[in-house]
This record gives sequence, structure tokens and C-alpha cells, in this order.
Amino acid sequence: MDRKQLVEQIFTKKTFLCVGLDTDLNKVPHFLLKEEDPIYAFNKAIIDATAPYCVAYKPNLAFYECYGLKGMQAFVKTIDYLKKNYPNHFIVADAKRGDIGNTSKMYAQTFFEEYNVDSLTIAPYMGEDSVKPFLEYKGKWTILLALTSNKGSQDFQLFEDKNGLRLFERVLTKSQEWGNPNNLMYVVGATQGSLFADIRKLAPESFLLVPGVGAQGGSLQEVCKYGITKDCGLLVNSSRGILYASSEENYTEVAAQKAKALQEEMAIELAKL
Amino acid sequence: MDRKQLVEQIFTKKTFLCVGLDTDLNKVPHFLLKEEDPIYAFNKAIIDATAPYCVAYKPNLAFYECYGLKGMQAFVKTIDYLKKNYPNHFIVADAKRGDIGNTSKMYAQTFFEEYNVDSLTIAPYMGEDSVKPFLEYKGKWTILLALTSNKGSQDFQLFEDKNGLRLFERVLTKSQEWGNPNNLMYVVGATQGSLFADIRKLAPESFLLVPGVGAQGGSLQEVCKYGITKDCGLLVNSSRGILYASSEENYTEVAAQKAKALQEEMAIELAKL
Repeated sequence: MDRKQLVEQIFTKKTFLCVGLDTDLNKVPHFLLKEEDPIYAFNKAIIDATAPYCVAYKPNLAFYECYGLKGMQAFVKTIDYLKKNYPNHFIVADAKRGDIGNTSKMYAQTFFEEYNVDSLTIAPYMGEDSVKPFLEYKGKWTILLALTSNKGSQDFQLFEDKNGLRLFERVLTKSQEWGNPNNLMYVVGATQGSLFADIRKLAPESFLLVPGVGAQGGSLQEVCKYGITKDCGLLVNSSRGILYASSEENYTEVAAQKAKALQEEMAIELAKL
Repeated sequence: MDRKQLVEQIFTKKTFLCVGLDTDLNKVPHFLLKEEDPIYAFNKAIIDATAPYCVAYKPNLAFYECYGLKGMQAFVKTIDYLKKNYPNHFIVADAKRGDIGNTSKMYAQTFFEEYNVDSLTIAPYMGEDSVKPFLEYKGKWTILLALTSNKGSQDFQLFEDKNGLRLFERVLTKSQEWGNPNNLMYVVGATQGSLFADIRKLAPESFLLVPGVGAQGGSLQEVCKYGITKDCGLLVNSSRGILYASSEENYTEVAAQKAKALQEEMAIELAKL
């Protein structure tokens, strides 16, 4: 999916919500555990319930890999289900990969050819040759970690050089030598508040994938205040706040309500543009 | 495997070689492709041929994930084969994972419980809560990227603060607040030459996992000159130089010769201690 199509989806559906498919069998409704593939059963139900209110889905690979081969089967089935039934939804594989050039190429092949997702999150620590192989796929997106939502983001991402440039800013400037706003997005945690303004100075047009709204404490209004651009430029993710809002029979309705509530807040923000 | 056992293996076998199982079906002998599981068939043969000359094996997950579920099956079978037949060999899953605490915990569970490997490589960008869940497993090792072997290592890892401290040095000092030389190693590329001396100033006792000897151009002598400690403190990896030294019927003998040649060089270095 290219930038134009993504922006079109956002303004047509009046939402920039990404639903994080962090499916944890300890948290899904108990009665699903008797299904042959409870992860897939849960994902399918959540997708059907939330699709009208979001433009993207983001399975985090950790939650699938932890169930071994069965988990990866559920991941593949989920991607296939999305591509078949919701071809206009953008798919982010949240895998935070990154290795030497030769090896990143294998990861790019895995996610962009074998699984055929639209985008992949990448850790920048290993630099240019670890990122470039992902950027070479036309119509696919690389989503580079810049300023993450967790407490540990302060340990290295705010490391500052003698001119006051912080590591996350170095990541933003350097990576724009390799990619552009049509194939490169950044992860910026919703918990980072006013630092969004600093991000926008260096990446005024780039799409930002924003986790951390909800369970992690980030505010949608604050993200929009500092981060939204004329063509939105945001994909705001919510996982736990939607997925596990209810563990009863009505879990899909409650998930839909939570997604709809976020969509309505987003529609207000989009109307201001 | 704890530090004492690892050091014992190194001095008993007179080697600190780690064989990288970066199994690429485009490079394995063609006649293996008719096997039901050519990745596993190749790995088994390479392991049997090289086991006397190494103390560790390091499958890089990219090479397995890229074949989808079949690839991951080959990975699992390879780990099982090692654990059953070579229980004294240290296993590194080279996966370069790292995510928010909640999610890193899932990865730790996957690799240390589900796959039961001895150690896992981790990217430090996301900081403390992304690393700590791995350190909580007794008898398991976290191998943090510090200064990698690739050209891109210069983009961010050498980023310098106003006191001249570089990011990789910040990673070394900060991470030693979380772990210690008994559960934390670092990846330092063999191509980094005299920078090993800087590493040793900040991590005098830590084991270093050293890729980049051979195909990537690093020198074993130089690594030892600056990096070896009284109890060795090194695991030097070779992948392509051993795995694909021959693509003929004799590939296992040639792999054994290459591994033996490295073991003999290592024995000389160990004898100097």
C-alpha cells in the first residue's frame, strides 16, 4: 500500500487507528481455549469487530513466536485472513528486526515476500546496511524505532552529542538519507508528549506509528497536538485497551465499542485539519 | 550452561570457536535439496563434522524464518539434535530481539523455555526494560549488541557525547547495572580491531561474542591481541567460511578442516594465557 492509498483510507474512514494484535492466551476469553486454534479464532473475531474503525492491524511477532510453530501458523493464517477479507487495511508486522546487510535481506524477504505484509518495524542500532534491504521493496514500508513508549527509551535514545543532538534525532536525520516519507515511517511512543514537536522538526512529513495510547498511559489529544500533519501522518496503535476490554461472551462488542470510541476522537482531530 | 562450565569446555577442547549455522539453501550442496528437510540435513552433517573443534553453535534466526514454518521446524529440530547429541555445546540463538518489557518477556519465554537455548542476542536500543526480562533466567545468557561487525555500526554506535563517550560504551556501562559477567555477554565485531581495547576497559571480564572473522574480513590474531582475557572471554564465530567452503560431496570434510584450522590457531592463543 502506498502513501496516497493510506492517506485516502484515513480520510475516507475518518480514523488513523491501528489495532495491535498482541494476542495472549492468558488474556483471551476462556471459552476460546477449546477452539482448535484459539489465537486465530480470537484474531478473526477481533478483526471482524474492529475493521470499520481502524485502517491498520499490527500483530507483534513476540506473541506468536512464543507459541512456537503453532503460534507462527496462527500469524500466517491471520495475515491471510486480513489480505483476503480486508485488503484495504495496512498490515504492520511488529518484529523489531535488524541485522547485518546480508541477513537483513533475508528478513526483508521473509516479511515482504513470504508473509507479504505492508510494513515491518526495524531497530536502528546496526545502521545503514541493516536498514536498506527493507527500503528496497517497492510499495512496502520500513518503520524504524525512533523514540519508543517504554521507560527504557531514556537509557540510550536520549543520549546526547556535544551539540545537543539526541540519538533519536540522529536516527531521524541519518535514516532520511536512506529513505523518504514514501517508504519510511518512525515509531514514536504516545508517552513522549511534547517531544513529538522535536520529532516533527526533523521529520515533518513522515508517518509516525504511535504505540502507548491506553494501557501505557499516552494521550491521543497530546499526540495530535504535537504530531498531526496536514495529511494526518499518524497511525495510533491500541492493543490491550481494545483486545482485552472484556473477557466475557460480549468481548467482540466491547472491543468494537472501544475501537469506535477512539475512531470518534480521531474523526474530531481529522476534522480540524 | 554457566560461566564455569563454558570456560571449562574452552580449555578442555582448546577452542573458543562458535560455528554460525546461517544455513542458506542457495549455498548448500545441490544434492541435499532432494532431502525432505535439506536445512536440517545440512545442519546435522555440519554439526557432526565440526563438533570436536568448537564449543558453540549459533543459528541466525533470519535464515530459518525466511523459509516460513518449514524453516522454523528445521530450527527446532536442529536445537533438539544439538541438545540430545552435544549437550556440552553452548547454543546461541542469534535473533537480535528487543521490545517493551511486557513483550521482551514473551521473547524470553520463547527462546529460553520453548526453544531452551542457552543464550539470545538482543538489540539494546529500547533500554533497560527491554533487556531485563532476559537476564532473569538463571543459567541463561543475554548477548547484547555493542559494536557490530558491519559498516553500518559507524552510523549510531560511534555517536559520541560531550565527554567523548560513545554509544557502544554507554551500552557497556549502563547494561552492567542490569547484568554481570555471569549472565551478560556482548557482540563485538572482529572487524573492530583495536577498539577491542576500549571495550576491555569497560567490560574487562565479560565474554564477547565475535562475528566477522573470515568472510567479513576480521583477524583472529588481532581480536585475541586486544580482546582475550585470562579465562578467554571470547567466543569467535565463523559461519560462511566453514559452512560453504565446499559445495561438493566432500563438504563435511572441508568444513571440518576449516573448523580444525581455526581451532588450532585458537589453541595457540589459549596456550599463551
